[in-house]
Amino acid sequence: MKMTEVAVKNTRVLEAYEGFVKHMKAFLDEQQFNHEEYTNFVKWADRLGRSGEIPLFLDVFVETYVLEAKYKNAPGTEPSLLGPYYEENSPLLEGSKVVIPQRSDEPGDKLKFYGNVSSVNGPIGNTKVEWWQDDADGLYSNYDSTAPDFNLRGQFYTDENGDFEVESIVPIPYQIPTSGPTGEFTFAAGYHAYRPAHIHIKFEHEGHETLITQVFFEGDKWLETDVAGGVRSTLTTKLIDKGDHKEASLNFVMRTE
Amino acid sequence: MKMTEVAVKNTRVLEAYEGFVKHMKAFLDEQQFNHEEYTNFVKWADRLGRSGEIPLFLDVFVETYVLEAKYKNAPGTEPSLLGPYYEENSPLLEGSKVVIPQRSDEPGDKLKFYGNVSSVNGPIGNTKVEWWQDDADGLYSNYDSTAPDFNLRGQFYTDENGDFEVESIVPIPYQIPTSGPTGEFTFAAGYHAYRPAHIHIKFEHEGHETLITQVFFEGDKWLETDVAGGVRSTLTTKLIDKGDHKEASLNFVMRTE
Repeated sequence: MKMTEVAVKNTRVLEAYEGFVKHMKAFLDEQQFNHEEYTNFVKWADRLGRSGEIPLFLDVFVETYVLEAKYKNAPGTEPSLLGPYYEENSPLLEGSKVVIPQRSDEPGDKLKFYGNVSSVNGPIGNTKVEWWQDDADGLYSNYDSTAPDFNLRGQFYTDENGDFEVESIVPIPYQIPTSGPTGEFTFAAGYHAYRPAHIHIKFEHEGHETLITQVFFEGDKWLETDVAGGVRSTLTTKLIDKGDHKEASLNFVMRTE
Repeated sequence: MKMTEVAVKNTRVLEAYEGFVKHMKAFLDEQQFNHEEYTNFVKWADRLGRSGEIPLFLDVFVETYVLEAKYKNAPGTEPSLLGPYYEENSPLLEGSKVVIPQRSDEPGDKLKFYGNVSSVNGPIGNTKVEWWQDDADGLYSNYDSTAPDFNLRGQFYTDENGDFEVESIVPIPYQIPTSGPTGEFTFAAGYHAYRPAHIHIKFEHEGHETLITQVFFEGDKWLETDVAGGVRSTLTTKLIDKGDHKEASLNFVMRTE
């Protein structure tokens, strides 16, 4: 076994690696990989790394378990994946009832979303909200969409009661990128590449842990088989047909630090 | 939890990933990583991947556990790391008593190595042997050394009794590359970057599992703390001073397929 000989610069790194080795040994005892299997894994992991898909792969196939481990028994709203499409510095919108920036002819079903943000200790007002989502083609501005930067992205503050309202469009399910090593793994294992429709939402309030989560909709075809495993029943809400638009609501509870 | 919706192309990939998730959950339950720690890990892993150091990192920090899991209770000689410096098509040398290709003024202590290769079932002759090692600067030909390609590399066959003799130089301890993300991890965790001196050796014989292993020397400063954890006591032999050269020997036993 390896031993440390020089000063440990970061005890958390050592502790994490030693913990990882302990569980990896149990995993390897079960799997009994042979030389060819190990070599194939190394070659795939090298392709994954060189392609720049490590963040994508980890966000899709690992992050949900990191979150579950930390929050499954914690009070407050469950976090879900940040994902690879978050972009800082989206437009700051005025008021707590906002229209998310969109093209004049933005395709898709119109959505009105009603939410409230409170603390595990009770009501809080003026919480910063960041919202980002895909468009009716399943694409994200600043990434794979041809829409202007920050399309369907914005930030604003809840009112003094914690309430907010958003006008946007209904997000749609989309596939994670499948042309690279992440897709190679996805299909080899027999997974589909779809994520159910979801809104990304992030909350910040002094004295509280930043809450990064997602909102899902009942009845979505991919809810049970989300390739990224990000769905939580507590984050799933009804999408109500109001004729010229759909309506949805969910309340969020932030943890204190 | 994710479910497979399309045909599983490679059941071994699915089985390995599901097994990995099971043990990863236990690991994450213990570690309780927060968002910042997860994000720092993703950024480091992305740097590791883009730098092309994934094979190096896995060979140093993972491969030994893959081998231990498969071979700790198996008969025959224990394998050790293939490592990142193996090169196919090294020169085929005549006979079973060979001089490994080297520069006319090759620096280092001269080594005579005596070995025998048998099978778990008894004696076997004419086993193919591949030998590769570092030079007196701790560098490998075809990689970081300025020596001609295939310097201190060669392949040959044992005689009808399984015996072989090699004239070479004594390998020296060396550090794994430390300037990239692998070194960043190594030093953060407080490990040194040294591997003890070792000879790489690979055996092939029909009807037998290819044996990839290493030979280590008693008294080496880094034997107990090899950064790659590749040392096995059964692979460690004495280096005997014979005046104008050193002498060492080890016998190897191959597993049947």
